[in-house]
Amino acid sequence: MTALSGSSLPELTVRTAWDSTRPLVPLTAARVMRSGRPLRIAMLAPPWIAVPPPGYGGVEEVVSVLTEALVRRGHSVTLFCAPGSASSATVVTLLDETHPDEIERSLYEVDHVARAFEAIELVEDGDGFDVIHDHCGFTALAMADRIHTPIVHTLHGQFTPSTAAFYLRHAAKATLVGISRAQLASAPPGLGPIAAIPNPLDVSGWQLVEHKDDYLLWIGRMTPEKGPHRAIAAARAAGVPLVLAGVIQPGQRAFFEREVAPQIDGTRVRFVGEVAGSAKRLLFAHARGLLMPIRWDEPFGMVMVEALACGTPVIAFPEGAARELVVEGRTGFLVEDERAMAAAVGRLDTIAARDCRNWVTRHCDLDVVAAAYERTYRSVVRESSAMTAALV
Amino acid sequence: MTALSGSSLPELTVRTAWDSTRPLVPLTAARVMRSGRPLRIAMLAPPWIAVPPPGYGGVEEVVSVLTEALVRRGHSVTLFCAPGSASSATVVTLLDETHPDEIERSLYEVDHVARAFEAIELVEDGDGFDVIHDHCGFTALAMADRIHTPIVHTLHGQFTPSTAAFYLRHAAKATLVGISRAQLASAPPGLGPIAAIPNPLDVSGWQLVEHKDDYLLWIGRMTPEKGPHRAIAAARAAGVPLVLAGVIQPGQRAFFEREVAPQIDGTRVRFVGEVAGSAKRLLFAHARGLLMPIRWDEPFGMVMVEALACGTPVIAFPEGAARELVVEGRTGFLVEDERAMAAAVGRLDTIAARDCRNWVTRHCDLDVVAAAYERTYRSVVRESSAMTAALV
Repeated sequence: MTALSGSSLPELTVRTAWDSTRPLVPLTAARVMRSGRPLRIAMLAPPWIAVPPPGYGGVEEVVSVLTEALVRRGHSVTLFCAPGSASSATVVTLLDETHPDEIERSLYEVDHVARAFEAIELVEDGDGFDVIHDHCGFTALAMADRIHTPIVHTLHGQFTPSTAAFYLRHAAKATLVGISRAQLASAPPGLGPIAAIPNPLDVSGWQLVEHKDDYLLWIGRMTPEKGPHRAIAAARAAGVPLVLAGVIQPGQRAFFEREVAPQIDGTRVRFVGEVAGSAKRLLFAHARGLLMPIRWDEPFGMVMVEALACGTPVIAFPEGAARELVVEGRTGFLVEDERAMAAAVGRLDTIAARDCRNWVTRHCDLDVVAAAYERTYRSVVRESSAMTAALV
Repeated sequence: MTALSGSSLPELTVRTAWDSTRPLVPLTAARVMRSGRPLRIAMLAPPWIAVPPPGYGGVEEVVSVLTEALVRRGHSVTLFCAPGSASSATVVTLLDETHPDEIERSLYEVDHVARAFEAIELVEDGDGFDVIHDHCGFTALAMADRIHTPIVHTLHGQFTPSTAAFYLRHAAKATLVGISRAQLASAPPGLGPIAAIPNPLDVSGWQLVEHKDDYLLWIGRMTPEKGPHRAIAAARAAGVPLVLAGVIQPGQRAFFEREVAPQIDGTRVRFVGEVAGSAKRLLFAHARGLLMPIRWDEPFGMVMVEALACGTPVIAFPEGAARELVVEGRTGFLVEDERAMAAAVGRLDTIAARDCRNWVTRHCDLDVVAAAYERTYRSVVRESSAMTAALV
């Protein structure tokens, strides 16, 4: 389970944005070789949704939390992002509007990244950035050999046959970082070793509750892969009330009506719809356990991290990043099916709430994650400087 | 009506891919400054559909015809394109598959263009290309200041508020070419003068027929903008039979059933579905006239050019490029409504089939269009060479 800790960083293969066939100019970044010096970081968010996101927006939430943590650690961060964003970093918005319903449309992604590269190069003429941290689709990575500042690119999604081909072709232009070992296990052979750094959570924002109420929690999208119907079966078999929370998105109504709605009785099975803010935090904090009967290879699972931060253990099917976030007998249980999930509910009181919180604080707290990225940035800057020194 | 002739080229504003703030290397392109020397052209087709297109694919058809004409004129053309393409040029395919149903998806567009740039630069290390002619979405234009070879970018679509913002921001990185004056009239103020070069047709592939049969032709998509119902009204009022040809695409069935199907009687109004190949050419060649009662600002209109090539005059509403392709009383008539269209049918015999063909041969034949692009390429290369000479 060390893949999510900072100690996995020695696995990191440093790749550089420098192309030895192109003309080089001396790197101002050489000045930051000494560890501990504040870094000048260009954080490149996607063009689709503001940072932080007003509603849905997993990547934008990660960018927001990480940016705040890096600023607090003393770095000079400039956030290149969609309009409407707010941050302690210097904020540079690029397009005139957000485009939440046109994600991956080349017109906007390419425009956004091309403007970001130009803005970054304007700064380059002055003091310059040490590193670009790219969270924005495909354009910056594919063009990373056409800008002098080295790029760190976080892999936010699953590998698919299409994205695998893309990454095989362009990965060497930047330093890739995954978000879980499970995600990286599906990387195409030939991509080489990539470090995993988990998505960050501000653990201090979530209250540790040691004396739990008598309910189990399921939260998520109303889809078969997320398994609300399996959570109901497991909770009923365990004889413990279940609270279901989540939004019913377009296209999910038929599944909800068929598999979930008939089971809702207001006592053993309750449905509270979409929850946010303090209501969501209380729901997580007072649950005896979070049920994750998922059937898909989820590259991360922020709801598990949020539950653990409150001291709420997780019972999950061994899929995707659940295999890393659930440490058997310590932060929860990995089980094969609904029957085993029901049985594991009986063992929840063997897990200490404080152990869950401690584990997640040590592995996913924003400061731990920011420190891991900081080491990655420094390693990339050192490598770039060394290559420059060898060539000029 | 000179916008579509080669004589409009003096309007061309030459922009260059060189950015004076970036390091320069001497341009091998200087060797092609002498007019008449064969050019080395990198033709960049989209990643979505093969060249030539097996079915629908307007841009790919233009790329195919232009590429063949340039090869025949003695230039060295390399076609960077989707798999399955065939050409007399050197063919370099980039992605493993075509993506006809994912047009504008950044993953594929960016991958395709990044690979093309790399392949072009590999050649640059040898003899090099003089110019890149880009037909591929947005990526190459936005990144045109990050490759040394100058880029000519053909505007294939309408300007929308979104694309207008994009072009205002990135146009100066390349030389833009429009496909009609009507299209360029909707360009945002501030984009500066842009030359129009029409889409090319191989006129020799279409037979001139001077003695026509007694029917009018409407061809197109079954949408209100294209106006099949208005063509029916005009033909009925004129008392001349009408042939409707075209595919009914998903989403167009309700309009067809409501407005078109009840009018089809097999004699005065016939519907022949989608036509292609020699059947399509015969249908164009033997019609007394082509009806274009369109209500949208069409940036070009290849069916009008095809009709004129057969000596078939066009009666059109004065929208978009129809205002340029229809020369009043010579290649057809511009009319305001169905009543005026019916009246114009009575004047069709005042137009000589040969005049229609001559006009289109002089303005849109593949060799005329290739020559216009050739002058554009040479102008761009001269400008780049001059800038290089001034700076080294």
